[in-house]
Amino acid sequence: MLVSAKAISGFKEFLPEEQVEFERMKRIITKHYELFGFVPIEVAAVEREEVLLSKSGENTKQIYGIHLLERSDQAHGESDKSLALHFDLTVPLARYVAQNYGKLDFPFRRYQIQKVWRGERPQEGRFREFYQCDIDVIGDGDLGLLHDAEMPAVIYGIFSEMQVGKFVIRLNNRKVHNGLLSHLGIPLHYTEHREVPPGPDWEGPVEVQHNTLTLIDKMDKDGLEKTQQEFRDHVGVSEEQLSALLEVLTFEDTPAATLQWLQSRQYGDLFTQGVAELTEVVGHMRSLGVPDDQFAVDLGITRGLDYYTGTVYETTLVNHESIGSVCSGGRFDDLASTFIDRKLPGVGLSIGLTRLFTSLQKHGVIHTDASPKSMAKVLIVQMHPDLRSDYFRLATDLRRAGVPCEVFLEDRKVDKQTKYAVKKRIPYVVFLDQKRKERGVCTVRHFEGDEAEVPLEGLAAHLH
Amino acid sequence: MLVSAKAISGFKEFLPEEQVEFERMKRIITKHYELFGFVPIEVAAVEREEVLLSKSGENTKQIYGIHLLERSDQAHGESDKSLALHFDLTVPLARYVAQNYGKLDFPFRRYQIQKVWRGERPQEGRFREFYQCDIDVIGDGDLGLLHDAEMPAVIYGIFSEMQVGKFVIRLNNRKVHNGLLSHLGIPLHYTEHREVPPGPDWEGPVEVQHNTLTLIDKMDKDGLEKTQQEFRDHVGVSEEQLSALLEVLTFEDTPAATLQWLQSRQYGDLFTQGVAELTEVVGHMRSLGVPDDQFAVDLGITRGLDYYTGTVYETTLVNHESIGSVCSGGRFDDLASTFIDRKLPGVGLSIGLTRLFTSLQKHGVIHTDASPKSMAKVLIVQMHPDLRSDYFRLATDLRRAGVPCEVFLEDRKVDKQTKYAVKKRIPYVVFLDQKRKERGVCTVRHFEGDEAEVPLEGLAAHLH
Repeated sequence: MLVSAKAISGFKEFLPEEQVEFERMKRIITKHYELFGFVPIEVAAVEREEVLLSKSGENTKQIYGIHLLERSDQAHGESDKSLALHFDLTVPLARYVAQNYGKLDFPFRRYQIQKVWRGERPQEGRFREFYQCDIDVIGDGDLGLLHDAEMPAVIYGIFSEMQVGKFVIRLNNRKVHNGLLSHLGIPLHYTEHREVPPGPDWEGPVEVQHNTLTLIDKMDKDGLEKTQQEFRDHVGVSEEQLSALLEVLTFEDTPAATLQWLQSRQYGDLFTQGVAELTEVVGHMRSLGVPDDQFAVDLGITRGLDYYTGTVYETTLVNHESIGSVCSGGRFDDLASTFIDRKLPGVGLSIGLTRLFTSLQKHGVIHTDASPKSMAKVLIVQMHPDLRSDYFRLATDLRRAGVPCEVFLEDRKVDKQTKYAVKKRIPYVVFLDQKRKERGVCTVRHFEGDEAEVPLEGLAAHLH
Repeated sequence: MLVSAKAISGFKEFLPEEQVEFERMKRIITKHYELFGFVPIEVAAVEREEVLLSKSGENTKQIYGIHLLERSDQAHGESDKSLALHFDLTVPLARYVAQNYGKLDFPFRRYQIQKVWRGERPQEGRFREFYQCDIDVIGDGDLGLLHDAEMPAVIYGIFSEMQVGKFVIRLNNRKVHNGLLSHLGIPLHYTEHREVPPGPDWEGPVEVQHNTLTLIDKMDKDGLEKTQQEFRDHVGVSEEQLSALLEVLTFEDTPAATLQWLQSRQYGDLFTQGVAELTEVVGHMRSLGVPDDQFAVDLGITRGLDYYTGTVYETTLVNHESIGSVCSGGRFDDLASTFIDRKLPGVGLSIGLTRLFTSLQKHGVIHTDASPKSMAKVLIVQMHPDLRSDYFRLATDLRRAGVPCEVFLEDRKVDKQTKYAVKKRIPYVVFLDQKRKERGVCTVRHFEGDEAEVPLEGLAAHLH
């Protein structure tokens, strides 16, 4: 009786040709993070439950704990109890920075590319295991605004090189929103009364506190009509307040014109400070080479979390808006006060790579049907067993020159060997027999069918 | 009240300067796996319990299951039940190959660099989460012997580039052992009677079946005296049998001399076949550039597992034998018969990177005290705020030329900025003020103190 090898929903695995493309994207992200000097760190997949619960907010229901399948009599130590898989990389970063505070140099600039786990209900496009690719700069006590300008430059580098079509980096500043709301007298939080359906844990109606910005955050998805109604019903705003608010939220123009218009508004100090920060960040972004048609000051961007306090970012693909934001982040005042008695402000961003990759596949932006299934650039055919050591020496020379290659090692006819190269999409095939060997050459056939005779000594250079 | 940020034993995390070195080693491994054409795959961290239990052997007690911290009424689907973290990469590979059998091309050559989890009791050098770096070639039905010769060539490439001192790739063939044991009439398995101490699950004395080769495998650790005694006590061999066995097991000479000696022995067909395979593998290894003083035919090498059937490998560091094998593997006949009704033979090897790295640290082979804490090669000092956009443009030019760099973004005095570079071990510092700008140059100071004036346009080339 065979054990079933079927997939588990929500835990995405790729075929080799998909994995090659996935790795290509992961390496582009890594490269750009490193070009800005960010240093890699990696945290354990597990944390003590109390660490995760201290910051999990709405995610509590999605946390996976771990336990030994067989409880043994031999105690595995106290620390084996109450461990759980991390659901993001921010909580572990906070714990890591607090734990190693004395050994880190600030501003601490790290990148982190790791899997996270969330017990979501299985559904298309929702993953229970996925990659996050994060960078954050953490200051000790304070952190200058120039860091906020670097984030869009990192995004610009990554998405340009990925070749996923035109994209727009949308940015805003939470102080603009908070200043505006408070100047207009609209509460920053509102209470929603929810009827909880009777069930085993029924506790009757509950009151849920929301950040008013979550309504703005959902505006793109819900539409203007529904958003207005929610503001009226839940936040209790007047029509006057609402129209003043929406005038700002829906303003759209070039970055320069939007900033100019914002500068002309009089909505109090916090608002003015937010606009000044936005203006400065935009100026430095330009010096960092982000072209004007690749970013937008988008006053509808808030990011949902209470966590963010200044600049916020989202990035969308122009021809695939339905994918939503493919890279987002922002400025926060307080990374780790749950763990350490220090103020550690920061700014960062995150790319959910598993979701991005599968969305791009689904929307036909990337195709893996034609991707290689081997990292080899060359297949050396075994034309005659007597020449095996020559094939091996040739392969060794190529590898030392940095050219990934494969010798066909099975005992098969030559046309079976070339078919293997075609199936695995190895672009070059090399033929060497006794006659060619005597003349010091080999024949190189390209995928497309072109053939060339190349001196053995020049093969690596020819293939580079 | 702060939440404690203390570490969890057995879940190793590195400081940035250690992580940089760890990544360097991981990239060397990746590079050499790819030079041989191996394609990356990655499996989910979790499997269904039945998949892991079908192959776990002695590891059953170490398997971590996962569960949702908060059981919710909304079912998360059947597949949420009975999931567990993988304890190695071989069982998931077997499941993956069986699951995707129709979509893979054979021989299937894949590499895999991922974390695995084992619920070991916390103790020094034992990890509960660690990296494995595996390659395997899997054939469909059959797989030629030449593949066995490539594995040592991969190992040679990796450990040469890692610069961890002299190493020796030890190889042997299980057919040599199995043939010898069977020719001498020594049983391949023996039974040990163990008294289980009374306890809640007490079931009285138990009989444990062992592979006789495990005694040979432990010989290095236990010493000759103890091994002989165990053979007498447990396997029940005669002194004649034992001395004939030990003559082979303890034979030591150059690879050529050892093979010649083995060829002269008459221990039956299986033994002779094993010796012939060893001889062929050694011949091809030489063609693949592995020098004679970097490998040994070591008849004491068996690898503990029943799993291996032919060539077996272990690699040791000459000056740090106590670290044990740093890379091992072998040939197996049957990867996935638990999951699929096909014979899938293979050959592979594995590097336990977390253990290797921490062992090398402990033995002083690698030092991270002087490793960089930033990926930047250059720090551009902010000498004057008016020149910020120049600093940003210079940084952008460097990054586009592939030079990782950082602009110092905080508002600090110049000497504080250079101290930051020293602390993070960024090798170059660039100074640019108004006067230098007018002359089109900057000053580049190297870590060691040398300074040079360099034209702004030539900076990237200078730093490459």
